[in-house]
Amino acid sequence: MEKVYAVGMGPGNGDQMTAEAREVIVSCDVIAGYTVYVDLVRKVLKERELEGKEFITTPMTQEVKRCRLAFEQAQKGKKVAMVCSGDAGVYGMAGLLLEISGDYPEAEVEVVPGITAALSGAAVLGAPLIHDFAVISLSDLLTSWEKIGKRLHAAAEADFCICLYNPSSRKRHDYLKKACGIMLESKAGDTVCGIVRNIGREGEGCAFCTLEELKDAETDMFTTVFIGNSQTRMVNGRMVTPRGYRNDREQE
Amino acid sequence: MEKVYAVGMGPGNGDQMTAEAREVIVSCDVIAGYTVYVDLVRKVLKERELEGKEFITTPMTQEVKRCRLAFEQAQKGKKVAMVCSGDAGVYGMAGLLLEISGDYPEAEVEVVPGITAALSGAAVLGAPLIHDFAVISLSDLLTSWEKIGKRLHAAAEADFCICLYNPSSRKRHDYLKKACGIMLESKAGDTVCGIVRNIGREGEGCAFCTLEELKDAETDMFTTVFIGNSQTRMVNGRMVTPRGYRNDREQE
Repeated sequence: MEKVYAVGMGPGNGDQMTAEAREVIVSCDVIAGYTVYVDLVRKVLKERELEGKEFITTPMTQEVKRCRLAFEQAQKGKKVAMVCSGDAGVYGMAGLLLEISGDYPEAEVEVVPGITAALSGAAVLGAPLIHDFAVISLSDLLTSWEKIGKRLHAAAEADFCICLYNPSSRKRHDYLKKACGIMLESKAGDTVCGIVRNIGREGEGCAFCTLEELKDAETDMFTTVFIGNSQTRMVNGRMVTPRGYRNDREQE
Repeated sequence: MEKVYAVGMGPGNGDQMTAEAREVIVSCDVIAGYTVYVDLVRKVLKERELEGKEFITTPMTQEVKRCRLAFEQAQKGKKVAMVCSGDAGVYGMAGLLLEISGDYPEAEVEVVPGITAALSGAAVLGAPLIHDFAVISLSDLLTSWEKIGKRLHAAAEADFCICLYNPSSRKRHDYLKKACGIMLESKAGDTVCGIVRNIGREGEGCAFCTLEELKDAETDMFTTVFIGNSQTRMVNGRMVTPRGYRNDREQE
């Protein structure tokens, strides 16, 4: 049985892919993934690097099937890359692949990390996640809203910087507003926030606002949202969280 | 004035550096950083890529001075890369650089993200951070222990997966034990945990244990610690957090 690799490709341009991710994809016989991500591989790799490869794509909701197809290819002796955008280990396919690997005891799965939106988005805004932070998805497709709300409340109470994935979708158009309401119970209304769109893709853009204003911000599934801690501030037009209380003084 | 780049090099081998980080470093006239990281640049880049470059290194506590030296070089028209291991935006130099950029209003700072230990360590263990997670540093050099304790408590209470940076040092040898005590107030004693050492470097290794056992684990400043949520479990010898409650069923 050959290996299955869960590969994070970063935010969607080839530039922010690691050398390791690229090498692994190039070395595999089969590329599996959600249609959009496999198209990204075709865009980022050179034609000669793709020669002879097989592609397995399944749509958004068929993640379990996608994993089984990958293991079946590996059982045939093929080396398989299951590709994801961002990091395969953050809301990505590495988890499901490993869960299902229990049914294929001879399977070896290797996770190849990538730049997740918390990191690539933070870099666009400045340095919002310099200190302790929490990453929370507002999608209640696989988690109850009760649990999401509890996490938002806890993270805000303990003054974490917070990064929100999946802030809204057509079906969940008011979730960001609800989330802001919960965070405003313990974070100040003028807390510095940042929004990043289409990170590393065409149409990349960002905006800054207060937590109070974030309630009415327009977001979609290609948006990542950042909420500062009590010390986060704007410096030279960028969102910056200080490392700690001693940074106000010169250290040397 | 030329640009100053805050560049995250990933976990310490050239493989997990992004193409962008490498290109930026190669394109710069000056490489600034903590001595150990600048040595890493010398190791990872080819000799001809380093030709003609100037190097500025300062020891661990002189971060402010390091930033000022970088801006002074930029004022002279030099292109400067301030290098960090991991991600420059997660407990890295991007924050301080941007804070100090307030004193150099004409300065342009660009942050180039890298793979932080939460991501690279998670990949070694399996997929512990697949769902909502919190990243907390146990170093009280720049944060009060009171605040750290509050964050540990909140993150454990709300069932976050937790990744701990700087779990201990010579001076703080019992901090991990104290942190486990706080998390055990709300997390079960048999919560799955993982420890990764020297990620992407010589001597890389990992171990799994329960939260109860983690209290007495040996860690140092090259260790990153992962504590699962209530659903995290071991599958095929790897630490895996399920994406959500529906993953138990086939989805298609």
